[in-house]
Amino acid sequence: MALIKLAVLFLAASVCLCSKHKSEKVPKLVNSQYGSLWPLPQSAQISVSAFQLSRSSFQIVHAPKSSAGPRCYLLGEAFRRYFEYTFGYSKRLNKDRKQSGAGTEVSELQVLITSSEPQCDGFPSVSSDESYQLTVDQPTAVLTAPEVWGALRGLETFSQLVYKDEYGTLHINKSEIKDFPRFNHRGILLDSSRHFLPLKVILANLDAMAMNKYNVFHWHIVDDQSFPYQSSLFPELSKEGSYHPYTHVYTPADVKMVIEYARMRGIRVISEFDTPGHTQSWGLGQKGLLTPCYSGEKPSGTFGPVNPILNSTYDFMTQFFKEVSSVFPDAYIHLGGDEVDFSCWKSNPDIQKFMEQQGFGTDYSKLESYYIQRILDIVTGTKKGYMIWQEVFDNGVKLKPDTVVEVWMGNALEEELHNVTSAGYTTILSAPWYLDYISYGQDWQKYYKVEPLSFKGTDAQKKLVIGGEACLWGEFVDATNLTPRLWPRASAVAERLWSHKDVRDTDDAYSRLSQHRCRMVQRGIPAEPLFVGHCDYEYRGL
Amino acid sequence: MALIKLAVLFLAASVCLCSKHKSEKVPKLVNSQYGSLWPLPQSAQISVSAFQLSRSSFQIVHAPKSSAGPRCYLLGEAFRRYFEYTFGYSKRLNKDRKQSGAGTEVSELQVLITSSEPQCDGFPSVSSDESYQLTVDQPTAVLTAPEVWGALRGLETFSQLVYKDEYGTLHINKSEIKDFPRFNHRGILLDSSRHFLPLKVILANLDAMAMNKYNVFHWHIVDDQSFPYQSSLFPELSKEGSYHPYTHVYTPADVKMVIEYARMRGIRVISEFDTPGHTQSWGLGQKGLLTPCYSGEKPSGTFGPVNPILNSTYDFMTQFFKEVSSVFPDAYIHLGGDEVDFSCWKSNPDIQKFMEQQGFGTDYSKLESYYIQRILDIVTGTKKGYMIWQEVFDNGVKLKPDTVVEVWMGNALEEELHNVTSAGYTTILSAPWYLDYISYGQDWQKYYKVEPLSFKGTDAQKKLVIGGEACLWGEFVDATNLTPRLWPRASAVAERLWSHKDVRDTDDAYSRLSQHRCRMVQRGIPAEPLFVGHCDYEYRGL
Repeated sequence: MALIKLAVLFLAASVCLCSKHKSEKVPKLVNSQYGSLWPLPQSAQISVSAFQLSRSSFQIVHAPKSSAGPRCYLLGEAFRRYFEYTFGYSKRLNKDRKQSGAGTEVSELQVLITSSEPQCDGFPSVSSDESYQLTVDQPTAVLTAPEVWGALRGLETFSQLVYKDEYGTLHINKSEIKDFPRFNHRGILLDSSRHFLPLKVILANLDAMAMNKYNVFHWHIVDDQSFPYQSSLFPELSKEGSYHPYTHVYTPADVKMVIEYARMRGIRVISEFDTPGHTQSWGLGQKGLLTPCYSGEKPSGTFGPVNPILNSTYDFMTQFFKEVSSVFPDAYIHLGGDEVDFSCWKSNPDIQKFMEQQGFGTDYSKLESYYIQRILDIVTGTKKGYMIWQEVFDNGVKLKPDTVVEVWMGNALEEELHNVTSAGYTTILSAPWYLDYISYGQDWQKYYKVEPLSFKGTDAQKKLVIGGEACLWGEFVDATNLTPRLWPRASAVAERLWSHKDVRDTDDAYSRLSQHRCRMVQRGIPAEPLFVGHCDYEYRGL
Repeated sequence: MALIKLAVLFLAASVCLCSKHKSEKVPKLVNSQYGSLWPLPQSAQISVSAFQLSRSSFQIVHAPKSSAGPRCYLLGEAFRRYFEYTFGYSKRLNKDRKQSGAGTEVSELQVLITSSEPQCDGFPSVSSDESYQLTVDQPTAVLTAPEVWGALRGLETFSQLVYKDEYGTLHINKSEIKDFPRFNHRGILLDSSRHFLPLKVILANLDAMAMNKYNVFHWHIVDDQSFPYQSSLFPELSKEGSYHPYTHVYTPADVKMVIEYARMRGIRVISEFDTPGHTQSWGLGQKGLLTPCYSGEKPSGTFGPVNPILNSTYDFMTQFFKEVSSVFPDAYIHLGGDEVDFSCWKSNPDIQKFMEQQGFGTDYSKLESYYIQRILDIVTGTKKGYMIWQEVFDNGVKLKPDTVVEVWMGNALEEELHNVTSAGYTTILSAPWYLDYISYGQDWQKYYKVEPLSFKGTDAQKKLVIGGEACLWGEFVDATNLTPRLWPRASAVAERLWSHKDVRDTDDAYSRLSQHRCRMVQRGIPAEPLFVGHCDYEYRGL
């Protein structure tokens, strides 16, 4: 292991902490021995020997013994993508250029898939194998992975090892990387209801996710504010519930494209259809679904959560989730279940009567659990697993053993993780990573310093924490500002979820992340700056 | 005055104040009688009668009696620009379409400049007349203004009065607008040193400024971190002091383009060359300019503020500011003078000796004042006025009567305004409007609620407050995120500085501003959302 000669990206290190330009403590920019690698691999040995790469001769190919071949389009597309990332998009007329002498060049990256089922046409899952091994030597570098998912991660790492010298020549050092993720669930939540997110924005963020080795797109697709999901069975939902039925919806073709684009990058798409709260927009296209609220003895004309006492509700949900379960191939659906407001239920005499009949007394959380229980049974009938927000667990609803509980409340966080895992449920953590909350300065450090397993519990309990999610709720973001607000702040979370738990040096991280964010910018992602400085190639958009 | 039928832009009004999606109090979206006007004119009478506008026949022309004619390129360009804003960029083949009947259409906007010196080829100044009067009637609307500067403001207002109905037809209501700014100095500070801002970003923000009737671009062009200004006399300054001498500099041609682009929009460009502090980058290309710091009895190798005891310093500054004063046509240069750190001066034995000779004792603020006084004299010799940050006034430096003191310190703000105006100096306010400080939620309201004249003082004192500036310091912004971070937050400041002091209804403002931000988005400015909702035309970039 030795210092990489990295002249790729320079960042000014001078720091003004004066009152006009106040800033919290800023990490030092060191020259990390790991160059611009992000997230840091589990093991990386990087030698001082450097080789060149030539745009005209370098190729990424299937290794002869690979179980994946030319018909593995997922890899073929990835080879193209990473070639472009590495060599840029400009055409250079250097086909005839003399190759440099033997022993100084890496001319080939061979990708070797070892499993008999490479997963070229499969979908990633929580148990996908993302491990890989990368040996960079001349004339051939070899990337070995059991499945294509690990190969995708290794291609990103390979591209991050390449750097340009001051003459524009590309180099890569002799290296040996062995890598795998610390957590299997590494997600980004985007909210396409509070603001509609054009397809272009979603796809660009899937690109950025792949650059950061994220593997779950948690698509909070509908909510109170709008219902952009175009259902085939219930087209009225988006016709009435979206901001606009033509310009502000996701058609079945759009959804398919998102899923396929994500799959090609090893990213699962977990859709969230949150009920019984957060459903105002559902009510516009599905009459009778929501609870009519009462003002005294008369309906007030407003509506509350989904009406849990009608058979028609469950008939609708059965059909709806049957469609959803076939549209979204992932094994899990997120069913929400958070923040149910009881006031409307309380006002409604029919609900009151039902509560009495069921012996719920005045405990409306029992009614909530009654509803959720039936929804979970419906979704179980579709052969899907489910994820839910923590309230569903907190309220004591009976859950399937494979349920994933998402912990989002910041108060009593460690206690909650303890409780959920004590009960034997897998869990993911999003509480510390609500990236919609912004503040002045380098808040990436705060996200970076979180240790997901700091709660008290047995090893078996800790194994139940399968990952986490960075959430960018949509109140204040849309196509104009989402991408720079998410990146590179979500990159901090990415390293926490991928790398070894002892990777916590903020100076080293700052140095690598600064370069990583400039790399994202160069690849067309408007990732915002961490602090003063510059990128060799500044963003070309607005 | 009556309600405009505005179907242009719809925003969802449902509000979730639950804990997961916490938000401060959100204003109500009302249907403002002023539609989408922003900033609100001093007087606007809008009738219920609406006329149509036709893309194929509508024209903006010089009124027959106007003192400006076809050779007034500033107006010609503005006519083109506002035609495009109004009718969009798509080509429609409707040349042969039948015109609608008499009495229902505005087919012409006549622009009448009344002053004998219309200022077509001039530069805007602090005393430019930006008043205008707009009469919208059929078949001809008339925009009257003494000078082109008012015409530019009136064209923006005209374009804001036009709205589309659900069939895509453009309408404008019979209206009578009389308008002028409350304050003459309405500025935006951008910082191109902490991050380099590509020309494209600066030009786009000049467009956005014009949409908000801003009239000063305060260009904080150099600072400690980098020196992107390419000087003709001292090319080493940017060669050594910029992030990169080819890709991260403003050439003389770039600077000219910024100034001309701004002039065409009625915007002054006031350059800031801040000394003696904030000058680390100057030292790289001008040896001997900065004070050598000492560690004990030896120079430490680091440098402090500009060296105030050498004749060579003043020779350099004389030449440098002579160049600057000819490159930037505005009557004012901003000379900075803020946040001088005395520790390096204190360490230097030559400075100590000089202090003794001058009888300054150990009061280094006297040395600072000595330096500033000489710089002010130098700039006075170039026939320019100067602006300075408040410390220069606070330290008792002798100032020319026409000096503009910029108040940026938030503590004792009203006292400072009282003191500066008591001493008879004009002042501008930036303290409440440091937009680089961000927080979760609707901070535009905070900026909006500021009342610049709330300090204690006579009417004469209050008249000395000529305006304010929204400052976006560059520590955490570059091309990736500057524009959505600035807009529409700076729009709130724009209305405070333009409109009548009693325009303070946040519900009405929220309604107009939501539509105004969607209009900016449609014109290509990625202005971020104020809260949940949508624009008919979402941003098409990333």
